[in-house]
Amino acid sequence: MSKGRVCLAYSGGLDTSTILVWLLNEGYTVVAFLADVGQEEDFDEVRKKALALGAEAMVIENLQQAFVEEIVHRAIQCNAIYEDRYLLGTSLARPIIARAQVLAAEKYNCEYVSHGCTGKGNDQVRFELAFAACNPALKVIAPWRMPEFTSKFQGRQDLLKYAAENNIPVSSSPKAPWSMDDNLVHCSYEAGILEDPDHSPPKELWTRTIDPLDAPDKVYQFSVHFEHGIPVKVVTEDKQEVTESVELFKLLNKIGHDNGVGRVDIVENRFIGLKSRGCYDTPGLTIARLAHIDIEGLVMDSKVRELRDQFVTQAWSRQLYNGMYFSPEREFVEVALVASQKNVTGVVRMGVYRGSAFVLGRSSDASNLYSQEDASMDSLEGFSPEDTTGFIAIQAIRLKKYGLMKRQLGQPLSES
Amino acid sequence: MSKGRVCLAYSGGLDTSTILVWLLNEGYTVVAFLADVGQEEDFDEVRKKALALGAEAMVIENLQQAFVEEIVHRAIQCNAIYEDRYLLGTSLARPIIARAQVLAAEKYNCEYVSHGCTGKGNDQVRFELAFAACNPALKVIAPWRMPEFTSKFQGRQDLLKYAAENNIPVSSSPKAPWSMDDNLVHCSYEAGILEDPDHSPPKELWTRTIDPLDAPDKVYQFSVHFEHGIPVKVVTEDKQEVTESVELFKLLNKIGHDNGVGRVDIVENRFIGLKSRGCYDTPGLTIARLAHIDIEGLVMDSKVRELRDQFVTQAWSRQLYNGMYFSPEREFVEVALVASQKNVTGVVRMGVYRGSAFVLGRSSDASNLYSQEDASMDSLEGFSPEDTTGFIAIQAIRLKKYGLMKRQLGQPLSES
Amino acid sequence: MSKGRVCLAYSGGLDTSTILVWLLNEGYTVVAFLADVGQEEDFDEVRKKALALGAEAMVIENLQQAFVEEIVHRAIQCNAIYEDRYLLGTSLARPIIARAQVLAAEKYNCEYVSHGCTGKGNDQVRFELAFAACNPALKVIAPWRMPEFTSKFQGRQDLLKYAAENNIPVSSSPKAPWSMDDNLVHCSYEAGILEDPDHSPPKELWTRTIDPLDAPDKVYQFSVHFEHGIPVKVVTEDKQEVTESVELFKLLNKIGHDNGVGRVDIVENRFIGLKSRGCYDTPGLTIARLAHIDIEGLVMDSKVRELRDQFVTQAWSRQLYNGMYFSPEREFVEVALVASQKNVTGVVRMGVYRGSAFVLGRSSDASNLYSQEDASMDSLEGFSPEDTTGFIAIQAIRLKKYGLMKRQLGQPLSES
Amino acid sequence: MSKGRVCLAYSGGLDTSTILVWLLNEGYTVVAFLADVGQEEDFDEVRKKALALGAEAMVIENLQQAFVEEIVHRAIQCNAIYEDRYLLGTSLARPIIARAQVLAAEKYNCEYVSHGCTGKGNDQVRFELAFAACNPALKVIAPWRMPEFTSKFQGRQDLLKYAAENNIPVSSSPKAPWSMDDNLVHCSYEAGILEDPDHSPPKELWTRTIDPLDAPDKVYQFSVHFEHGIPVKVVTEDKQEVTESVELFKLLNKIGHDNGVGRVDIVENRFIGLKSRGCYDTPGLTIARLAHIDIEGLVMDSKVRELRDQFVTQAWSRQLYNGMYFSPEREFVEVALVASQKNVTGVVRMGVYRGSAFVLGRSSDASNLYSQEDASMDSLEGFSPEDTTGFIAIQAIRLKKYGLMKRQLGQPLSES
Repeated sequence: MSKGRVCLAYSGGLDTSTILVWLLNEGYTVVAFLADVGQEEDFDEVRKKALALGAEAMVIENLQQAFVEEIVHRAIQCNAIYEDRYLLGTSLARPIIARAQVLAAEKYNCEYVSHGCTGKGNDQVRFELAFAACNPALKVIAPWRMPEFTSKFQGRQDLLKYAAENNIPVSSSPKAPWSMDDNLVHCSYEAGILEDPDHSPPKELWTRTIDPLDAPDKVYQFSVHFEHGIPVKVVTEDKQEVTESVELFKLLNKIGHDNGVGRVDIVENRFIGLKSRGCYDTPGLTIARLAHIDIEGLVMDSKVRELRDQFVTQAWSRQLYNGMYFSPEREFVEVALVASQKNVTGVVRMGVYRGSAFVLGRSSDASNLYSQEDASMDSLEGFSPEDTTGFIAIQAIRLKKYGLMKRQLGQPLSES
Repeated sequence: MSKGRVCLAYSGGLDTSTILVWLLNEGYTVVAFLADVGQEEDFDEVRKKALALGAEAMVIENLQQAFVEEIVHRAIQCNAIYEDRYLLGTSLARPIIARAQVLAAEKYNCEYVSHGCTGKGNDQVRFELAFAACNPALKVIAPWRMPEFTSKFQGRQDLLKYAAENNIPVSSSPKAPWSMDDNLVHCSYEAGILEDPDHSPPKELWTRTIDPLDAPDKVYQFSVHFEHGIPVKVVTEDKQEVTESVELFKLLNKIGHDNGVGRVDIVENRFIGLKSRGCYDTPGLTIARLAHIDIEGLVMDSKVRELRDQFVTQAWSRQLYNGMYFSPEREFVEVALVASQKNVTGVVRMGVYRGSAFVLGRSSDASNLYSQEDASMDSLEGFSPEDTTGFIAIQAIRLKKYGLMKRQLGQPLSES
Repeated sequence: MSKGRVCLAYSGGLDTSTILVWLLNEGYTVVAFLADVGQEEDFDEVRKKALALGAEAMVIENLQQAFVEEIVHRAIQCNAIYEDRYLLGTSLARPIIARAQVLAAEKYNCEYVSHGCTGKGNDQVRFELAFAACNPALKVIAPWRMPEFTSKFQGRQDLLKYAAENNIPVSSSPKAPWSMDDNLVHCSYEAGILEDPDHSPPKELWTRTIDPLDAPDKVYQFSVHFEHGIPVKVVTEDKQEVTESVELFKLLNKIGHDNGVGRVDIVENRFIGLKSRGCYDTPGLTIARLAHIDIEGLVMDSKVRELRDQFVTQAWSRQLYNGMYFSPEREFVEVALVASQKNVTGVVRMGVYRGSAFVLGRSSDASNLYSQEDASMDSLEGFSPEDTTGFIAIQAIRLKKYGLMKRQLGQPLSES
Repeated sequence: MSKGRVCLAYSGGLDTSTILVWLLNEGYTVVAFLADVGQEEDFDEVRKKALALGAEAMVIENLQQAFVEEIVHRAIQCNAIYEDRYLLGTSLARPIIARAQVLAAEKYNCEYVSHGCTGKGNDQVRFELAFAACNPALKVIAPWRMPEFTSKFQGRQDLLKYAAENNIPVSSSPKAPWSMDDNLVHCSYEAGILEDPDHSPPKELWTRTIDPLDAPDKVYQFSVHFEHGIPVKVVTEDKQEVTESVELFKLLNKIGHDNGVGRVDIVENRFIGLKSRGCYDTPGLTIARLAHIDIEGLVMDSKVRELRDQFVTQAWSRQLYNGMYFSPEREFVEVALVASQKNVTGVVRMGVYRGSAFVLGRSSDASNLYSQEDASMDSLEGFSPEDTTGFIAIQAIRLKKYGLMKRQLGQPLSES
């Protein structure tokens, strides 16, 4: 008799195939689950393999649209970034995947959900916190944190030996000396040779962008149209015009890919308190984020922006990184985020060239905050320069007292 | 009899030459002042012109070292940035210039200080707030906010006519259709044709960076060495090694210049509530800022970084932008900034290529926070994966209650 | 012929009566305006006086409900406070008054709005910024900032002389040696003898609370019921039960008044950069704020609260204090505020006694966050203490590295 | 042979006496440790009992001065508070106790430290994180999280039975139906009957303050003198004058005690994600905090205060609550805290009366920020009211655009 039914996040690789078989051998019934969030994958092969290994069912869900519209659009709206560099590619996909896995588990009456995440990383946290919120009754089996599993599988050799013993097919192509995770937004590279933070990522590592040195020796131009902070249309110099959310994002990915835009190599702070080195290539989101920041400059009120930057951007990014998407605080922050985007409507003209993306111009009818006449140094229409005198005088009240105090104390106004 | 002595910020250009003569004609004695903060300038010519026009004295002060060491280093330490894009080049120089102008005014017993800033910009605010703090007794003459001046000089033609009438030499080279301000850190371009935010900056606009398309078709490598967050040595692939603060910064400028790194084109929010469009090329600081962010990833505690990012970086950048350098709040924030950099010591290896700067690797002996063994997914030395189970379980307490509440209310965990 | 029509904020006192007559003498037509925001006032007398002095019309609007429901409820929801002490009584009323004055000005086709605020205070800023947003076309006449007015009226004697010359009736009761402003929420006292910050407010100053020493020598009990952070019912020990918003607030005021609750005496920082001393008695809001903070403790998620405290409370309070109610940033922040109050529903039982308000207990059915069983130290139902071990171990990773580094550096963990 | 030597935090009560004996029975050698942080305790009795039960040694350390000077003074300087109500009394003492326990453990060559904290509370976290930072090599024995202990001791009866079997003396006085923790700063009450958040604390619960109804029916006056934000002298109406740090704090405690000042009853969010109900009486710190906030009003720059309130106060308070005292981030924040107090020097005159503390006046020679003349509404010396016109006009630029946009969109400026 089965110990119970487990819904296992299954990728078709050696690790999760091993877990699948191990769970079966431990007496569980296994429903395999795979989300299509835009990664490179032969989904049919994965299905066949899961069933061949003994899974009761293989659930494959295309979540690309939900991924883009529920999460990636929010990331664009808040210029999401972690520790000044990381665009959160992996973090963004996790909640969408976890929610669908919970739904699959519920559909197949599973008592357990399981995954192949390591015991030191962020992803275990992201998956399990999402499971906890989406269905608090589900129990988690995390083999890479279970002594009975980790003591059996101490290295890749143990996995290969188990595969041989259990008729698990193993890919004949050699494993890259790092691990990867990809989705519509990015591909991440970490571990292996990258654990030395001074080891530069080799040229062949990057899969989502071509080397800037190999990119065309000309600027490629296009425009990104925003409504309420969401990209709704991209038009390119060669007359492509895309409006559907997933297609639009794929087009930005292709533009970034072809011109080598969006590579990042960092050491970051994981939620659990360790530092780790990661390389990410994130072509489309890098471009979309830059375009969005630019259109905000034209149309967004300065004080709203200041509060949004300090509060919403920092909080939302950290919540996603730490796996707190399904949480009261993310809901709370997202209400503010959406409110901030009311007038963020307009067009940004951009170029890309050999590793760089840049803005060529922007325009909008949605806001009266930028006015060429107001901005003009030559025009005084509707502006009394004397007002500035008063403005400065009032601001100076405090500073004059500061200066007087310094003089009384004999303190210079700086060390030099 | 003189109405009093005025210390005028004098650049040798048409505007401030006109002001100089106008002040003389109004009955003031004028001491001209020019700060050398690394801008392109023929200082001897400026001196001759000022004296020829009737200035009692021409004071020229080389402030490059103070500029770099007192301010630019702080900007690097806090990854200073305004509205996600602007590296504050002009704002950084203003306090250093204003303080020196006050010292010159005091030395020459001036009652007044004067400048040629327009009445709608940020610089008038920055100068005058700095004057107020540095010497609250000095009075300011701001001609471009005085009706008696602005009614007389309503356009460039009026300036040229006045110049002709008053023997003010005028440069024969045609004026660029935008205005510029440069110093060691950057050159800014605004006004004129740039007032249309959809008008792309022309290729010939940029003076501090060559066009990425014209840059060498190869990566140029170098390393930046930091101590306590300050760049103390740069070593290049062609064996240049520089440690002196100003020379080091000039070398980074040259690397950036030659490889087209550091151009930004934005619409920003001025302190006085107007939006304006600015283009900036900031080669060296763009590189230094990226390197500094990178080394912080390796060596800085995550919680210190989070607080520094949200509090110090935002506050210091805004204070500088708004002309609040000489203020209690900048002093306060800077104490925290310096404290945050205690362990920010290490080396960043970098490359630049046709518009992009990027990191190739980093290392440090100053911090034990990154550990290859800790980071390794393969090693469990000193780490109990079971602890993560507990960590997640505790984090999940709140989220399970959230999920239960949602279920009770019949609310899905998101809109889809 | 009239110079134009002015809508003047008119209180019936000596200052605004003088301004009314002065405006008439200057050739303007005057429409007087008075808002009823709950202050002590003989509105009929004010009407008669304005018309007698020559006002074309006297508009009196009862704004108490809008004041309570649009603003005071928001202040309660965000626990609004300025500089840790001031509950913003005056600031809260200003936007409601200014908006109604603009509507009156529009109704009577006035080109101008005018007020009697002094030139150094906050209220001029609050009124005029609200006028600017509510109708940018209206022009402001601020006599106390106009040299032609201030040179004529340099002290109270000049006002009395002008009153005598112009048949302006003057109250025979002696003026208090401080100035006051009152509304439904509080009464403020400032200036005069209070300008010495070490001069204690005299016993007779306070008008909205009796002296705690004169209050009943027994605890008075009542309960405050909240829905979504808004007080919707108050029930007292003597069987009063009130639900209508204005009546409810008046009942809290009476409870506070009778028991001496809500006095504050502070030195605060005005928006324009000066410090000033103010005394405030704010009976009902002091009680409502305490009750609201308490019910939030029972029902609000901790992370939402942390974000709300740091951003929403601080920002909204400052916006109101600085007169930025009608602004994009207040709108933005208020969306987040309302979202934070979704579950803030429940009952707080309270007592007041001789100057103090305190909580006796609280309950709610709206949230599952507090659970007696969870909280119990004796029960381990559904809680694995071992999880805490893991939680602590993960939190300690960073701190152990910190401790090791300190030991290596030979630094003690503190100065002692 | 001993399993090793354990340094046990020992209070002499039933719980830790049981743990002491249990550890001995398990084969450990036990060194008992007790910190004197100002709690009510018969230290000689505790010493005798520990040795009688079999402890190898009993270490008792008077840490009152370190507690006050290293931590309590910082709490006063930053107006520390958690969730708007809790003055952190227990949290403040924990780091001082833990550090001393580590030193005792090191002195006696212990491999282990142990404590009697429950598995659901904050204190276990605070102690163990402090242990981790102070000596990362020490191992922790937390019996209330060990199944072998908790399964044996499931309720108080089990403890009493074990005590009887093991000759552990048990106090004959009946146990209060709540648990308590006291130190110089406060006494806390939680658990037992208080787990019902609607159960009012009974009159006899409070130990550190008398009932306000029983307090003298007169105001008691005194003054608190601050230097750099630290209270350095208290002078009372009956001529007491105290300057020594511990004595000064005890005098404030006595004033608060005798007049019923400092009771708080809340539901708070524990670090581990549960809510709990706590009652605290905190007489002296309540008074000191109010006095400090008041003197800051008089002497502190407004912008420094705003930044300090939003970042330092919130961060430091949370760090202490969560047990992160020995951490890089607390060090970082404390540097800023101390810098903020540079000018916080002056005298606050206060009164207390039947549950309330209040300010009667304040004065300082240390700051020029408050000026009676500046503040005076009557004086225009050195102040041009016209400047305010300019100040308002510049602030209004943005708001007029906002108002125009609203009008164009046909949106009213609020819901009514």
